[in-house]
Amino acid sequence: MNTYDITVFLEDTDAGGIVYHARYLNFMERARTTFFYHKGVNHGQLIASKTGNFVVTHIDIRYIKPAKLGNQLSIHTNLTEIRGASIVCKQNIMHMGEKLAEATVTLAFIHPETGVPLRIPESIKQHIH
Amino acid sequence: MNTYDITVFLEDTDAGGIVYHARYLNFMERARTTFFYHKGVNHGQLIASKTGNFVVTHIDIRYIKPAKLGNQLSIHTNLTEIRGASIVCKQNIMHMGEKLAEATVTLAFIHPETGVPLRIPESIKQHIH
Amino acid sequence: MNTYDITVFLEDTDAGGIVYHARYLNFMERARTTFFYHKGVNHGQLIASKTGNFVVTHIDIRYIKPAKLGNQLSIHTNLTEIRGASIVCKQNIMHMGEKLAEATVTLAFIHPETGVPLRIPESIKQHIH
Amino acid sequence: MNTYDITVFLEDTDAGGIVYHARYLNFMERARTTFFYHKGVNHGQLIASKTGNFVVTHIDIRYIKPAKLGNQLSIHTNLTEIRGASIVCKQNIMHMGEKLAEATVTLAFIHPETGVPLRIPESIKQHIH
Repeated sequence: MNTYDITVFLEDTDAGGIVYHARYLNFMERARTTFFYHKGVNHGQLIASKTGNFVVTHIDIRYIKPAKLGNQLSIHTNLTEIRGASIVCKQNIMHMGEKLAEATVTLAFIHPETGVPLRIPESIKQHIH
Repeated sequence: MNTYDITVFLEDTDAGGIVYHARYLNFMERARTTFFYHKGVNHGQLIASKTGNFVVTHIDIRYIKPAKLGNQLSIHTNLTEIRGASIVCKQNIMHMGEKLAEATVTLAFIHPETGVPLRIPESIKQHIH
Repeated sequence: MNTYDITVFLEDTDAGGIVYHARYLNFMERARTTFFYHKGVNHGQLIASKTGNFVVTHIDIRYIKPAKLGNQLSIHTNLTEIRGASIVCKQNIMHMGEKLAEATVTLAFIHPETGVPLRIPESIKQHIH
Repeated sequence: MNTYDITVFLEDTDAGGIVYHARYLNFMERARTTFFYHKGVNHGQLIASKTGNFVVTHIDIRYIKPAKLGNQLSIHTNLTEIRGASIVCKQNIMHMGEKLAEATVTLAFIHPETGVPLRIPESIKQHIH
């Protein structure tokens, strides 16, 4: 449930022969979306509802070793903090037992039109606790 | 006006050392957006208006020579056909006088919610003729 | 073996609320890579070997219906032609039994440094036949 | 020299109607590449030389306000630290005088095959000082 697997395809790599650094953020977003989906929170529906959805407000990511074409990566996601209007996840990108990258990602719950931070609804909190 | 220049950055390349083939579609979309903008058609505003916007319905692209990191590319865009509910563009991707790729792109004007094809408004046709 | 499933994540969508058209080429490349991998052809190893690999030389893609955030897509890949130095695949992007897009993709076998077309080695042909 | 302008195109946005958060890393990489190019350091040539190039080892990015389709963004890059084997940049993403995001990016100089950190050559240090 808190592990999401991906394969590195050609689109993920760059001319340096390794995964382009920004792609890790895409991988981690796929992992978080799936993590929350399995907890009963459908982010696509939140966006479609236009009443409130999560946006990334802070990322701290450390790149330790590069990933390469064809690697099978495993993204580990842990929800470490639930505040009134935001949550914090720790995510590790693993390859064959080695940590390639580690990140702390903060997501705020906002109104999609105004961008104003909103209290995370209890219905969502109950799911993610 | 019908030429749009881009530089190939690391994000555009893949582990084969060349521009990833799908990126050419991104480059061509940037060039078309700018082409129409200079003709007085703001695609971002069309999307925001939610009354009708263009979507790609067909692409035929031939890759002739690869582009590489740091190359300065020039995208040539010509509007070759204006029909009732769609338009056709020819686009060439050039590098130092050589053609790297050539494409024919068809765009339909649709309703953003239903996806139903709409007649292109006269106000738009006047701009792009 | 000739079906590859993907989920549409936020990264795949655009402000029009649908999958960005160029992303289909990324999806199809993931499907082809996996298709050939299961047939015994590891494209990552071909690229690393620096003696010859496949590159896309022509794509004809028709977009029929848009895919949306959270959709589960299935990419069908069929190898329809094997020539001396190139192959042709037909690929359909399906959602719940409906065809969203169909494409014909030609790949040439080339020398990675010079770009010169090469005869596809018999060792590869035996795998993909 | 330390300002790099980009326009937000459809490819940069997501179904939430704003720029997809990972894209800022792409924008900042384009800005850094151009910043170093104007200082006389051609990153594409460094990669091609296969003797040493920069890779991102740490990013801390704070997202303040979202960017939207059609926005003209300006990326400000400052080199704040030059160490033996790494450098640190501060980068701000601006829109009409407002800061949309701010990041601290650390880049290490490494051997492209082994990934081992290398001392930044004096020839490069002279250019970037």
